[in-house]
Amino acid sequence: MIRVGIVGISGYSGFALLKILLGHPQVRLMYVSASQAHGPVDKIWPQLQGRTRLSCEKFNADRAAESCDVVFLAVPHTVSMTIMPALRKRGVRVIDLSGDYRLDSASVYKKWYKTSHRDTRALKRTVYGLPEIYRAKIAKASAVANPGCYPTAALLALAPVVSLYSSDVGGIIIDAKSGVSGAGKKPAPQLMAAEVLSNFKAYKMLAHQHTPEIDQYLSSISGEEISVTFTPHLLPIHSGIYETIYIQMADTFDQGGKLQTVYRKFYKTEPFVRVMPKGDLPEIKNVVGTNYCDTAVSYDRQKNMIILTAAIDNLIKGAAGQAVQNMNIMFNFSETSGLL
Amino acid sequence: MIRVGIVGISGYSGFALLKILLGHPQVRLMYVSASQAHGPVDKIWPQLQGRTRLSCEKFNADRAAESCDVVFLAVPHTVSMTIMPALRKRGVRVIDLSGDYRLDSASVYKKWYKTSHRDTRALKRTVYGLPEIYRAKIAKASAVANPGCYPTAALLALAPVVSLYSSDVGGIIIDAKSGVSGAGKKPAPQLMAAEVLSNFKAYKMLAHQHTPEIDQYLSSISGEEISVTFTPHLLPIHSGIYETIYIQMADTFDQGGKLQTVYRKFYKTEPFVRVMPKGDLPEIKNVVGTNYCDTAVSYDRQKNMIILTAAIDNLIKGAAGQAVQNMNIMFNFSETSGLL
Amino acid sequence: MIRVGIVGISGYSGFALLKILLGHPQVRLMYVSASQAHGPVDKIWPQLQGRTRLSCEKFNADRAAESCDVVFLAVPHTVSMTIMPALRKRGVRVIDLSGDYRLDSASVYKKWYKTSHRDTRALKRTVYGLPEIYRAKIAKASAVANPGCYPTAALLALAPVVSLYSSDVGGIIIDAKSGVSGAGKKPAPQLMAAEVLSNFKAYKMLAHQHTPEIDQYLSSISGEEISVTFTPHLLPIHSGIYETIYIQMADTFDQGGKLQTVYRKFYKTEPFVRVMPKGDLPEIKNVVGTNYCDTAVSYDRQKNMIILTAAIDNLIKGAAGQAVQNMNIMFNFSETSGLL
Amino acid sequence: MIRVGIVGISGYSGFALLKILLGHPQVRLMYVSASQAHGPVDKIWPQLQGRTRLSCEKFNADRAAESCDVVFLAVPHTVSMTIMPALRKRGVRVIDLSGDYRLDSASVYKKWYKTSHRDTRALKRTVYGLPEIYRAKIAKASAVANPGCYPTAALLALAPVVSLYSSDVGGIIIDAKSGVSGAGKKPAPQLMAAEVLSNFKAYKMLAHQHTPEIDQYLSSISGEEISVTFTPHLLPIHSGIYETIYIQMADTFDQGGKLQTVYRKFYKTEPFVRVMPKGDLPEIKNVVGTNYCDTAVSYDRQKNMIILTAAIDNLIKGAAGQAVQNMNIMFNFSETSGLL
Repeated sequence: MIRVGIVGISGYSGFALLKILLGHPQVRLMYVSASQAHGPVDKIWPQLQGRTRLSCEKFNADRAAESCDVVFLAVPHTVSMTIMPALRKRGVRVIDLSGDYRLDSASVYKKWYKTSHRDTRALKRTVYGLPEIYRAKIAKASAVANPGCYPTAALLALAPVVSLYSSDVGGIIIDAKSGVSGAGKKPAPQLMAAEVLSNFKAYKMLAHQHTPEIDQYLSSISGEEISVTFTPHLLPIHSGIYETIYIQMADTFDQGGKLQTVYRKFYKTEPFVRVMPKGDLPEIKNVVGTNYCDTAVSYDRQKNMIILTAAIDNLIKGAAGQAVQNMNIMFNFSETSGLL
Repeated sequence: MIRVGIVGISGYSGFALLKILLGHPQVRLMYVSASQAHGPVDKIWPQLQGRTRLSCEKFNADRAAESCDVVFLAVPHTVSMTIMPALRKRGVRVIDLSGDYRLDSASVYKKWYKTSHRDTRALKRTVYGLPEIYRAKIAKASAVANPGCYPTAALLALAPVVSLYSSDVGGIIIDAKSGVSGAGKKPAPQLMAAEVLSNFKAYKMLAHQHTPEIDQYLSSISGEEISVTFTPHLLPIHSGIYETIYIQMADTFDQGGKLQTVYRKFYKTEPFVRVMPKGDLPEIKNVVGTNYCDTAVSYDRQKNMIILTAAIDNLIKGAAGQAVQNMNIMFNFSETSGLL
Repeated sequence: MIRVGIVGISGYSGFALLKILLGHPQVRLMYVSASQAHGPVDKIWPQLQGRTRLSCEKFNADRAAESCDVVFLAVPHTVSMTIMPALRKRGVRVIDLSGDYRLDSASVYKKWYKTSHRDTRALKRTVYGLPEIYRAKIAKASAVANPGCYPTAALLALAPVVSLYSSDVGGIIIDAKSGVSGAGKKPAPQLMAAEVLSNFKAYKMLAHQHTPEIDQYLSSISGEEISVTFTPHLLPIHSGIYETIYIQMADTFDQGGKLQTVYRKFYKTEPFVRVMPKGDLPEIKNVVGTNYCDTAVSYDRQKNMIILTAAIDNLIKGAAGQAVQNMNIMFNFSETSGLL
Repeated sequence: MIRVGIVGISGYSGFALLKILLGHPQVRLMYVSASQAHGPVDKIWPQLQGRTRLSCEKFNADRAAESCDVVFLAVPHTVSMTIMPALRKRGVRVIDLSGDYRLDSASVYKKWYKTSHRDTRALKRTVYGLPEIYRAKIAKASAVANPGCYPTAALLALAPVVSLYSSDVGGIIIDAKSGVSGAGKKPAPQLMAAEVLSNFKAYKMLAHQHTPEIDQYLSSISGEEISVTFTPHLLPIHSGIYETIYIQMADTFDQGGKLQTVYRKFYKTEPFVRVMPKGDLPEIKNVVGTNYCDTAVSYDRQKNMIILTAAIDNLIKGAAGQAVQNMNIMFNFSETSGLL
């Protein structure tokens, strides 16, 4: 039994964390805070009436550090980097769900997030929390940067190809589609129901901040420098991400026929990655509400092109679920604890 | 060919007016304004690229009155009553889509709209623009108050019963459901897509400002004082209103078996009210994008209860379409002109 | 640890049962069958890949009775009554999710279900599985008829009023709205996505088979004969039921101001009924995915009318969740086991 | 004023044709038929109550040819090729909305449509009805094959690039998303609302029959042999297609900076293709209900990759609207007649 806290419970990731952690058998939720909301948690989230009597307070680093063995940060980027140092100094382990500690380079951060990083020395010390790839490091980490939602699906789908056939990998195109909860809870004209219902569109063309995150970790997994083309789209649904990924393979690649077996083997022991049976494709409805990433591999022999499809719940495997999976690893619990 | 203007094109009713009036064969759109937006109309509404080169300006009463034979006000309530007097003084006819001129009584207005009326003398002079009931008055009106979306469906469904059987009408319950465009375009937390998608709820229980409007005109049609129970709900769709209406009839009522015939006859010559064939019920999909009101009458003999169902497009028959229908009547055009 | 079985896993209720029972800590799922589907459960429901290795077989009463302490029937009505007798004879306890054993009277069954009942003697012996009202009987029952989705919300919302103020209750109108999963999985033209998306409509006007079920149990709870007006509507969402209920109270009723307190008290110890704080209204999004029924009571003093609102997940509190709640009671488990 | 007929009014394309043609000022709708439905058109489509008194009959080639100057075929593929010869023999002009006459080659047809063609000689005589490219041929055509919905958006988006820079065009990837109406009206398990709502998925991976249609006409426009990668996905909305298209350009291509101007110029005089202003992207909501194709061109200088986005209404520009546009050209009407 460990004591945990959540900073930032008024957003959708914070809410997803609340739901998972309140049902986690090895966790005692001790501390929750939010910048604007305060008072009983079940006033902020009527869905939780009857589930908790916790009260939400203004963030205080001493209170958080004293009450908790691990603290989840579910705050917007640029806020995490003002909180993380205070918590780390007090010795509490931290899992950050924002984008602040995912990139190695402060200059890349500045380029894509349009703001200067204020805790640059911590960037390289923070472990990237993608369990399927960095499990060993996560186990020992004091600070974990939980992956972005789009990168989670992209990296899990691509890891087998880029690690096993790195020298054959040509251009990679990621056509990604996300439900609206990924855009957060703050009112904005383009996220109003009347603008989203019955609609679909691309957005942030060539400018989404998850692009360098995907590039950095694909390059790390592959050992080669990789730079993807990434296009996000907005789906008129609440939750779920779907990515269709095109990889042009070099002429030297002749393993297309074996890919299904390779994928099955690569993820054989992973509890949360499911390789679809041959001929089946992922669907968002099969993963929403779960911590699974479903992925399928298709191959166009004529063009020597691999087409990957992957689906996750952006708030669970793409945020809160993966964060709890990381916590399970950090505290040596069963990795699926609280998540099935 | 008449010259028309729209004040308030940046909301959904204003947009619906633009689309209809740009295609109306007897209309020349001369003047459009909005309080915040300005510049080319097709920048404000990319949907209209290629349809118009009009430019949107700040409202100026002189400019509007000089350029137009009739001006539509598609502004929020409380704004109309600051604009209407200036336009009326300049002699231009006005069709107001807000709630400002629908109620006879300034005190009732204050009670439900929570603000004082500032043009009270004009209240009784303004004609209520429900063509099926007040056609003759509309034809001669210089100022028309276009009905609210909920009242339009309610009054059209109820008019035959309350006018023909007024002494038998007992309690009336209107259970109403509306798509999100009825709530307008202004960002609000509860109207964000992530809050609306896959959701449904009642709102403004016993407190919706359309209640006194329904009461006033039902009483006027009936000749008896009527006070309804009205409950609005929010549907996770863009457009459309559906109302299910329960009327407890007195024991003296024994015409249940003839209601279908009565309804057919009542609306026989109306171009925009369709009484469903016996056994069929309205559906929102059958009226969205049109100026129709579909209605059906059911009868529970055992309880002597009439159940009406009615569907309209809240932005068309519930706003812009009905406004143009009123304009057609005011200028002696074919009533369906520009609307089929 | 008990052994359980599910007959009929290929429908949505069967699927909801699978998900809950696979995560229930005191249950071992031993037996699953379906009439058409067979083979691995995770082929029938790809969502369950990695969760189970169970295989689905053709129903066999001996196999089911031998393997299980309790069997859930998630089959269409008219099918349950052919299976129930065989299972009962073999001594296994049964929880039936169909409509076959909810009504006391075979003639009422025939009138509303349009078919003759074939196990009429068992009708009165089967206990109606609404835990909040019939908990004691359920604990000892060998056969439980799990309530319909619409009746669950209606009875829970209405129980306080009709039991405490039975002599003051006048006409009751239930305006009900349901997501599409309530209509089942069998392909039908009017349930195709292209007909449902962006649409809303009433259906089965004055003819829905849940009407006599509501009447029977309201009368039982009240002690007076009650006959409601019930109108179902189809919402363009997957899951969730919302009911808005109007009760005309007699002049003798003067407790309107105390209703909030009365409701709070009535459901004070119930784990799955939440009375909304004064001023709040239920929303479908707050209960979807849970076994909660959220309800609010409003009161119109002028008309002496009570307006109740209630929301449930039709597949959980309206089907599988409530069935498991019944099982928990029958086997003396914590009532919330597997359901939070 | 010409006389027109529609064969196959019971599907969604047939319905879209009805709506457009009933409002077309130069058309008299004389003849409608359907294989299953018969009787008054407004019984088959309640939406059209009050719009028409036409009656639907079983198809008869003599009746159709006698009554009409042009006949639209809105029947499933494999049906058109049994009707087209009979109509052509009787001298009536035909616009076929099915896939039967779009491909030049009977063997390609057999490969992708999995059935033999039965009117192979007519394949090369039929004109492909994409007005923006083949306007002159359409004007004189006696038989027109109306393009598929996916190919319409793809070809319009790609035409400028493949025609102007044919030698620089490398691999082309089309990631396409469509609303459910594109899949037709026939009940199917995977198209039920409960399977589609809140869901998203790819389908027919590397196997969609529109692939060879895109290849054939891109090759024709380009003058080079082109073979695209095409992946269709199913959107949880009624209507609308969105395509995101990736073109890897050869190193010889250095015109990226001029593409916006090139696209503007290419479509300058086209009434139904709108090139988005720089920085804007198409959205499905801007084209639904219209005959427009909105398209934008983006350019990644670093990768020398062009990214096109395009949106249409699959039932209008992707079917019925384009068919009427073709009719307007064939009969020398204004090309936008009945379509704005």
